[in-house]
Amino acid sequence: MYPKQISIYEVGPRDGLQNEAQLGLEAKVQLINGLSACGLKRIEAGSFVSPKWVPQMADSTAVLQQIERQQNVTYSALTPNLSGFEQAIAAHVNEVAVFTAASESFCQRNINCSIAESLRRFDTIFVAAKAANIKVRAYVSCVLGCPYEGAINIEQVAAVSQALIDMGAYQVSLGDTIGVGTPQNARQMLDAVSQRIAPQQLALHFHDTYGQALANILACLDSGISTIDSAVAGLGGCPYARGASGNLATEDLLYMLHGLGIETGVDLQQLANVGHKICQQLGKRSSSKVSQALMN
Amino acid sequence: MYPKQISIYEVGPRDGLQNEAQLGLEAKVQLINGLSACGLKRIEAGSFVSPKWVPQMADSTAVLQQIERQQNVTYSALTPNLSGFEQAIAAHVNEVAVFTAASESFCQRNINCSIAESLRRFDTIFVAAKAANIKVRAYVSCVLGCPYEGAINIEQVAAVSQALIDMGAYQVSLGDTIGVGTPQNARQMLDAVSQRIAPQQLALHFHDTYGQALANILACLDSGISTIDSAVAGLGGCPYARGASGNLATEDLLYMLHGLGIETGVDLQQLANVGHKICQQLGKRSSSKVSQALMN
Repeated sequence: MYPKQISIYEVGPRDGLQNEAQLGLEAKVQLINGLSACGLKRIEAGSFVSPKWVPQMADSTAVLQQIERQQNVTYSALTPNLSGFEQAIAAHVNEVAVFTAASESFCQRNINCSIAESLRRFDTIFVAAKAANIKVRAYVSCVLGCPYEGAINIEQVAAVSQALIDMGAYQVSLGDTIGVGTPQNARQMLDAVSQRIAPQQLALHFHDTYGQALANILACLDSGISTIDSAVAGLGGCPYARGASGNLATEDLLYMLHGLGIETGVDLQQLANVGHKICQQLGKRSSSKVSQALMN
Repeated sequence: MYPKQISIYEVGPRDGLQNEAQLGLEAKVQLINGLSACGLKRIEAGSFVSPKWVPQMADSTAVLQQIERQQNVTYSALTPNLSGFEQAIAAHVNEVAVFTAASESFCQRNINCSIAESLRRFDTIFVAAKAANIKVRAYVSCVLGCPYEGAINIEQVAAVSQALIDMGAYQVSLGDTIGVGTPQNARQMLDAVSQRIAPQQLALHFHDTYGQALANILACLDSGISTIDSAVAGLGGCPYARGASGNLATEDLLYMLHGLGIETGVDLQQLANVGHKICQQLGKRSSSKVSQALMN
């Protein structure tokens, strides 16, 4: 049985744009306003990491100040540490997100510490977030494979996810960061994590690098999962394979879900227009096949 | 339960190249030789339609004469009428294919006659093929939607398919010609056709115009189906939406099937190399996401 509804977690303005050419403040603000106008209710709007590492996100405070807030929309930001969390709160985010990995090697290379140390660093964020009554979302990357280690033990994915839930995360987003999963191992991974965590507290964040994201999602759709991450126009590319795809395009996801009779509350044609515009501004071709088809 | 094996019907040299820029004879011959070297056992090598309509296929006789035939490989060609069939036989094809639609409007616009008339025209081909001991495959297009009519009644798909089997086709390839299907309606269509025809006599030919092909195939994989059509590098594009995708890339299909533990007998890395080469010759980017990822 497919679910009646799926909540889309739109990551284009953060996970997407952080891997694109630098975009101006106004274009970012317009993008986020365009996304909320399409009916998206959860939008990752920015990131408070060091601008040395991610210059594309250096203006996240200004972005969050200038967007037209919609009352029923959750605007979130990535916060790697307490300093980032405080900036995010000052910018009036509705929730924050922390980021670790199921792969030790990836964690080391990406955030320069062990998985255990990454969790310890989040402690102060969880404490401060609880005091501020701010929800914390957690990303676990490399759940279906790692660019450095290859296959990842699904028990490791489950253990890291559970640690984050135990610390206070309201949802863990399971990231197939390099898009190497296929339907059966995606489902096996989800089932292993669901042994410990209710599926309503999990999200799928499957990249489309090998074109498998929709099939992998389909294989997981009757598991009780209720949130899926995607990026308008498939923004972001894949930092581990230049020219390859990264984030699943929200348009392509919506097309499948709506075809299955699943409600998302998002207007696909309007979203395709938003994706078309941002791709024009970036001077790139949309990674969304639905967009390419609809724009003809 | 997934099947243990799937037979890939490689349509790149015909359904793919007929929608690409004209390619030289030698490049076509090398492509087909490259495909058989990868382990593909069924290759659609050309088409005997009027060169006025499909100039890209005008040299199909020369292609079939010059390829290095592998003993256990079936080389086929599209034959719209008895004249085409006779040319195909003279060029020593191993089997032929006929082509009609589940949509009256598409049939009219594409082959300039009604569906019933298209079937009557095939009569002489089936008679001649039986006499020559040549197998006939049949394509039914627009099984999940038509660019002119929109939705297509699945009973119409089943009826046309059955007529072709009754006339002597050994397999009917169900074409989502414009790639509009989603997993549930793809499966419903297949189930309707399977009421009349054993799934072993059916093939899935799903285009990836809206990025749904793999998910649609996944939804059909436990139906008893044993043949799937695809094109190396996703050759072909979509003639109904310029710039959009057409054929599903064989590389992306193999990646999913192999990930599910399904044998195809095809070497994915070698095939990606063949796809890379033909795209270089055509001066285009591969439509295969797997190829884009592997080539980095």
